[in-house]
Amino acid sequence: MEIAVFGTGVVGQTIGSKLIQLGHEVKMGSRTTNNEKAVEWVKSNSAKSSQGAYSDAANFGELIFNCTSGQGSIEALRLAGKNNLKGKILVDISNPLDASKGLPPSLSICNTSSLGEEIQNEFPELRVVKTLNTMWCGLMVNPSMINDGDHTVFVSGNDNDAKKQVSDILKSFGWKEKSIMDLGDITTACGAEMWLALWLRIYMSTINGAFNIKIVG
Amino acid sequence: MEIAVFGTGVVGQTIGSKLIQLGHEVKMGSRTTNNEKAVEWVKSNSAKSSQGAYSDAANFGELIFNCTSGQGSIEALRLAGKNNLKGKILVDISNPLDASKGLPPSLSICNTSSLGEEIQNEFPELRVVKTLNTMWCGLMVNPSMINDGDHTVFVSGNDNDAKKQVSDILKSFGWKEKSIMDLGDITTACGAEMWLALWLRIYMSTINGAFNIKIVG
Repeated sequence: MEIAVFGTGVVGQTIGSKLIQLGHEVKMGSRTTNNEKAVEWVKSNSAKSSQGAYSDAANFGELIFNCTSGQGSIEALRLAGKNNLKGKILVDISNPLDASKGLPPSLSICNTSSLGEEIQNEFPELRVVKTLNTMWCGLMVNPSMINDGDHTVFVSGNDNDAKKQVSDILKSFGWKEKSIMDLGDITTACGAEMWLALWLRIYMSTINGAFNIKIVG
Repeated sequence: MEIAVFGTGVVGQTIGSKLIQLGHEVKMGSRTTNNEKAVEWVKSNSAKSSQGAYSDAANFGELIFNCTSGQGSIEALRLAGKNNLKGKILVDISNPLDASKGLPPSLSICNTSSLGEEIQNEFPELRVVKTLNTMWCGLMVNPSMINDGDHTVFVSGNDNDAKKQVSDILKSFGWKEKSIMDLGDITTACGAEMWLALWLRIYMSTINGAFNIKIVG
């Protein structure tokens, strides 16, 4: 599959490299062509990797992973261009973290809305699926690293077919069917994003990002 | 131990009855003496149960459970009277849920503060420990109901001795030592309260409150 990854940070690199390992062709998108980190990432991956501006990557991808910082996500999608987004699945794994008020970061959107909803509202041509934002990126692509892979990943989105396709990608990352919890439509992304407040405080008390929640009942 | 339970709803009744079963003497506090639900609760429990105004209950208790609705908690504590609160542990299990903007409820305080912090700030004479607010009340007092009791309860508070005493009460409720996660000072209550946003959406997708999170890592 031809996939765009928006964002050149550690999350984008981790997701991009995993997708390459799984045999996909991946174009990493950033604000400018030849972003230094994107060029480095292409060098360290196979010939299936490439990079370009957000618009190049969006045009290339059948599906787009949003791995930008949450506060830059809307702008990145605007730069991508509505024509390049039409009908595509956006796998939104970003969080609207805001460190401007001190640490731990607060959320720039929360409580009565979420970044996932705001993206879906501004870009109705996308099929947004919120997922994977609830954990450290190392676990996203390697869930078996802890608890024999037995912990929970959430999906939220309005389009059931899109959620099915994204769940298949999650399974290819190593997630078990029983670990994938469909919360409902994109408004439920509010819950998945607000969990970050607790994630951050658990992280600060343990200084170890390799943890997740398992829903038990 | 002589314990005050603020709040006459299902949470207060559940906590109060469990404390009675464990041999404590419990006075349920409410806005007025002879609150109808408090009187009913006393009738259905042993002679160790009693009821009265918030000030009566606070005066009676060596320790106070705050089981009021979050939006009424500060007012309940004001009515209790500072002299009746001095040096006491407040086990704060409330959440600042606000249904005025529709369902699921949003939080009336969140992101850069929390109800736990606001209570501690307004009542420095209390030793506030936030705990148990992250789950359905049936599980609070009967954790073995699911997953052999193997799931997580958080504690937040500034006073380590108070957290130790509250952890001992949690253990008497059936919580295992390893399931009790100390997040740190009372500012970490922000994370425990914001988890409610995800709790509510999981609940709405499953229509079953008998679930919890287990932190795995």
